[in-house]
Amino acid sequence: MIVALKPGVSPEKKDELIRRLGEQGLRVQEARGEFQTVLCLIGDTARIDPELLGSLEQVDKVSRVTEPFSCCSRKLHPADLVVEAGGVKIGGGHFALIAGPCTVESEEQLMAAAAAVKAAGADLLRGGAYKPRSSPYHFSGLKEAGLELLRAARRETGLPLVSELMDIRDLELFSDIDVIQVGARNMQNYDLLRELGRCGKPILLKRGLASTLRELLMSAEYIMSGGNERVILCERGIRTFTDYTRNTLDLSAVPMLHELCQLPVIVDPSHATGMSRLVPPMALAGAAAGADGLMIEVHPDPEHALCDGAQALRPEEFAALTQKIRRVRDAVAR
Amino acid sequence: MIVALKPGVSPEKKDELIRRLGEQGLRVQEARGEFQTVLCLIGDTARIDPELLGSLEQVDKVSRVTEPFSCCSRKLHPADLVVEAGGVKIGGGHFALIAGPCTVESEEQLMAAAAAVKAAGADLLRGGAYKPRSSPYHFSGLKEAGLELLRAARRETGLPLVSELMDIRDLELFSDIDVIQVGARNMQNYDLLRELGRCGKPILLKRGLASTLRELLMSAEYIMSGGNERVILCERGIRTFTDYTRNTLDLSAVPMLHELCQLPVIVDPSHATGMSRLVPPMALAGAAAGADGLMIEVHPDPEHALCDGAQALRPEEFAALTQKIRRVRDAVAR
Amino acid sequence: MIVALKPGVSPEKKDELIRRLGEQGLRVQEARGEFQTVLCLIGDTARIDPELLGSLEQVDKVSRVTEPFSCCSRKLHPADLVVEAGGVKIGGGHFALIAGPCTVESEEQLMAAAAAVKAAGADLLRGGAYKPRSSPYHFSGLKEAGLELLRAARRETGLPLVSELMDIRDLELFSDIDVIQVGARNMQNYDLLRELGRCGKPILLKRGLASTLRELLMSAEYIMSGGNERVILCERGIRTFTDYTRNTLDLSAVPMLHELCQLPVIVDPSHATGMSRLVPPMALAGAAAGADGLMIEVHPDPEHALCDGAQALRPEEFAALTQKIRRVRDAVAR
Amino acid sequence: MIVALKPGVSPEKKDELIRRLGEQGLRVQEARGEFQTVLCLIGDTARIDPELLGSLEQVDKVSRVTEPFSCCSRKLHPADLVVEAGGVKIGGGHFALIAGPCTVESEEQLMAAAAAVKAAGADLLRGGAYKPRSSPYHFSGLKEAGLELLRAARRETGLPLVSELMDIRDLELFSDIDVIQVGARNMQNYDLLRELGRCGKPILLKRGLASTLRELLMSAEYIMSGGNERVILCERGIRTFTDYTRNTLDLSAVPMLHELCQLPVIVDPSHATGMSRLVPPMALAGAAAGADGLMIEVHPDPEHALCDGAQALRPEEFAALTQKIRRVRDAVAR
Repeated sequence: MIVALKPGVSPEKKDELIRRLGEQGLRVQEARGEFQTVLCLIGDTARIDPELLGSLEQVDKVSRVTEPFSCCSRKLHPADLVVEAGGVKIGGGHFALIAGPCTVESEEQLMAAAAAVKAAGADLLRGGAYKPRSSPYHFSGLKEAGLELLRAARRETGLPLVSELMDIRDLELFSDIDVIQVGARNMQNYDLLRELGRCGKPILLKRGLASTLRELLMSAEYIMSGGNERVILCERGIRTFTDYTRNTLDLSAVPMLHELCQLPVIVDPSHATGMSRLVPPMALAGAAAGADGLMIEVHPDPEHALCDGAQALRPEEFAALTQKIRRVRDAVAR
Repeated sequence: MIVALKPGVSPEKKDELIRRLGEQGLRVQEARGEFQTVLCLIGDTARIDPELLGSLEQVDKVSRVTEPFSCCSRKLHPADLVVEAGGVKIGGGHFALIAGPCTVESEEQLMAAAAAVKAAGADLLRGGAYKPRSSPYHFSGLKEAGLELLRAARRETGLPLVSELMDIRDLELFSDIDVIQVGARNMQNYDLLRELGRCGKPILLKRGLASTLRELLMSAEYIMSGGNERVILCERGIRTFTDYTRNTLDLSAVPMLHELCQLPVIVDPSHATGMSRLVPPMALAGAAAGADGLMIEVHPDPEHALCDGAQALRPEEFAALTQKIRRVRDAVAR
Repeated sequence: MIVALKPGVSPEKKDELIRRLGEQGLRVQEARGEFQTVLCLIGDTARIDPELLGSLEQVDKVSRVTEPFSCCSRKLHPADLVVEAGGVKIGGGHFALIAGPCTVESEEQLMAAAAAVKAAGADLLRGGAYKPRSSPYHFSGLKEAGLELLRAARRETGLPLVSELMDIRDLELFSDIDVIQVGARNMQNYDLLRELGRCGKPILLKRGLASTLRELLMSAEYIMSGGNERVILCERGIRTFTDYTRNTLDLSAVPMLHELCQLPVIVDPSHATGMSRLVPPMALAGAAAGADGLMIEVHPDPEHALCDGAQALRPEEFAALTQKIRRVRDAVAR
Repeated sequence: MIVALKPGVSPEKKDELIRRLGEQGLRVQEARGEFQTVLCLIGDTARIDPELLGSLEQVDKVSRVTEPFSCCSRKLHPADLVVEAGGVKIGGGHFALIAGPCTVESEEQLMAAAAAVKAAGADLLRGGAYKPRSSPYHFSGLKEAGLELLRAARRETGLPLVSELMDIRDLELFSDIDVIQVGARNMQNYDLLRELGRCGKPILLKRGLASTLRELLMSAEYIMSGGNERVILCERGIRTFTDYTRNTLDLSAVPMLHELCQLPVIVDPSHATGMSRLVPPMALAGAAAGADGLMIEVHPDPEHALCDGAQALRPEEFAALTQKIRRVRDAVAR
């Protein structure tokens, strides 16, 4: 961590600051320039809050050199992490296709979707039993009955399950769900993250709409520092000024996250774009950018899903897409 | 709600859509243009999800006319709502100054802060017992002991309390806290909002960093539709591309929210800027923009608060600021 | 265009508005709802400024149905436009690889770069003779001498040229440059766009850092309505809150622009990311998303380019990338 | 400037980098940490491009300590700059109220507006003769005839003039305009800025919609390094994800710019909000935040200005607002 002092700070004030930093267990090296003096802090700076340090009267500017995350730092963990969930591997060269309906609506709908994505080559089945909705008047999922249907679909197809947990009090209900999803709106629900750090299950952590990569990794750090290292990161679009698409899919996050950390990174083109006709090109782009997997919404009958799921691909569209995804992965790998 | 059809939609497809919308209890009026046909939906459109409607094959574009919130709509509730908390009124001409330390650190710190803000004319005391921190390695509050100290400060000063609830499981511990704060990161924690809709206490709802005003109001609607109408909105800065300040304080949200809804709107310049020297100008700007209150961090000794609270004003800075705030309110009101 | 009236507008005020709109040559259809009345404007609404209309006292909200661009509207021009530049075709299935150094530095550098990109299969040579730099103290190009070197490189390799015009007064100097580039910072330099509308040369129009797709298309409309239809659009990253990459490459713009207009759309991963190691994955992602071309910076010796060009790929990296790009295009096309 | 090296960089590579930096005239101090080595560069780093430096193979991260602007740096120019234009002073305690129509439409309109703003106490008259419009089909100003009318209004009222220059070729036509405005879209039109650096007239430089404060100051530096120090900065709203207001007025830029530089800073609430009813609260907020002036649109008859100017205040609204602005300034100053 680098601390640039304000021009004209008195030697006493400077020494006071150095003394305090020393009390935090840090060594300080000093570099004096024409206009400014700079302190280099050496040691465990992860516990130092750069904003608070920057607000001290002596300080002009603080910048990080070492990232504040360690459990999920590529520098400390050079090898790719492979997460295994229900017998399926993700990361380190293992590509996972996660597909299914946005929301579990009925037995008929889920079974049709599950069979279709299985037939098309999906590796895991996704389906929401608890749905975050921005309006209190919209359908928010079948809850426990939805989880029950998901289990039935798993029995039928053998596909491991991915489903979103919203409320920390429901954690026990998810004890046999293969991958617990943390939605974008909950990425900084720290109490939830802490509990998941103790649950021993793979966690699919979605990036928040306004979250930097550092914040995403700090949220992963919450889970991992609690003892659960099986975290999968998911880019699903960020909020920008653009207005034609719901969010802006930030695909450069994929190679950047691979550089910063050892965790698998997947892409969700369905939520990012909000429009089924943009899903195939963005799914292919995600695969080309090096994602370790894709999460795609598939609905057996989007035509009649006025209340839900209409942004989904039809089974035949998904089947055609999976062929192209495979070819793109081959094209990039060679 | 307005639905523009794609050019060249067949009459059968159009009639099918109109029939389905009719099944949702909506009347449909049709306007045929040279290039496009437009349907105006009349009735209770709050239950219609515009994104899903927009994804249908017949539909080119959907736009809302009536806002999807009703509990907190100014059109339906023309009079300003006055929220009363611990004997203090906020809104409808009643201005509330909420001040205190970011985090409760110790009895000495809190008592000094509380006495100082009381002396300077604050109306409520703020203090965090549970703190959301982006790093799992930073201090996250004294928890129950912090709430206990807050109660002691209330006994001492008579100031009602504002404190943040992060985890839904802690709700009972907040039963005698005068105003429960929902932080920006929890603005779309819908299960938490639903519980608060049943708790009968004033809620201070902070705008999320990437939340539109509509989303903020939909979150208020979650609370209010559950039966608790005592919601105070708080603008605390949004995330933008700017890099000199932590966030961008969106003060135009104050008059815009007053136009859209009947709820009191306050401003938090401390979190928006993250720098104590920017707090006074932004606090004054917030008062000039018509805010119903301000929430300002005050610490008795920011000099020695390396671990916390250094973005706070000193008591004497806060006292000087309150004088100016009063004068600005007078200047604007006349 | 849809105009929602404020609740409670008097019949006289409404009729006055309808009369005025009629004077603009528009037909008005009225739809009365429970809370609000909506006017559908039919006719040539491109001349209507929606913000000004929205500011009238009778009006609650305005939303566009028909887009305000016509020269570059897919609805009016369903077939892909193929732009030909120096014998190379772009668009409508023709993919163009544009490569070369960011800035022309010297004859040696440019010739080496040109030979290398030619050998690797590039279709056009890029090189900046006039460079926009955010600091007045940074190197801003060789100017006319740079253009002269580009011409020499064209003679040597046969590759048509792409170079950026910054100052309208230099237009004549570009008379034999094959494609004139308008940089992101000049996307709304309307006087420049108008002149380019009269110059009869292919224009590569880069999206501004904070420009919506509609604004990009309105800038294309400036050029095209002047009589020059040969416009190529370029996505080069937008400004968002992200901080690890310079800008955020918005790849969903590619399929969305293809849906909105008939123009070719290319992607510039070099400027979007600002880091050479992110260029290959983002170039591949752009190809997978359906771009009609890529513009990539290549420098013969980035190691020694402290003053310029270090974000570029080395020739051998570019050559390897072109192989993968071809394979990805095949994978996606089948 | 601080350069953090990648972990594991060889001593040879490090020495090579230090040697090269030395060739740029910089002294280098080295600080070795557990994981990383950091170089502090001392000397004139304004000529170093941090992005290019950051792309070198040895380098992990670069951060600036000293800002890259010097002409407009508060550190080097501690006293407030007072800009004088047509006898009116702006900055250093001198507050300027700039008002008038968005666009000069006719003699009648301009004279009425000029008389009204003069009567209400405006210090300068604004009016656009050349208007940037996002659509080529919208009215783009009366051009030279508009400038002629502005001169007539100046003769009538004595108010100095502020008007926007869009095209560098029109510079001579502006030779007797008191303040030349550079619009937000032209903030990085560097050739224009360079010419204005030689013109010896006060320049009102508007912040671009996606420009950081550093970029705004670098654009001021373009003008000032050419010899023209009379630059006034203008905050007019930035582009964010918000959708209820046209842009987001970033008022924290006012105190932050005052801290960074010596130039006067004014606020334009009219363009930021795009809605006349939001102009008064945002104007008052700007005054409370410490702006050195305000630029406000006033139209004698916004009711009948369907084609232009409808976002403007009426003369009586402006007159009432000026009273409040004065009172707010008093309230803040004491």
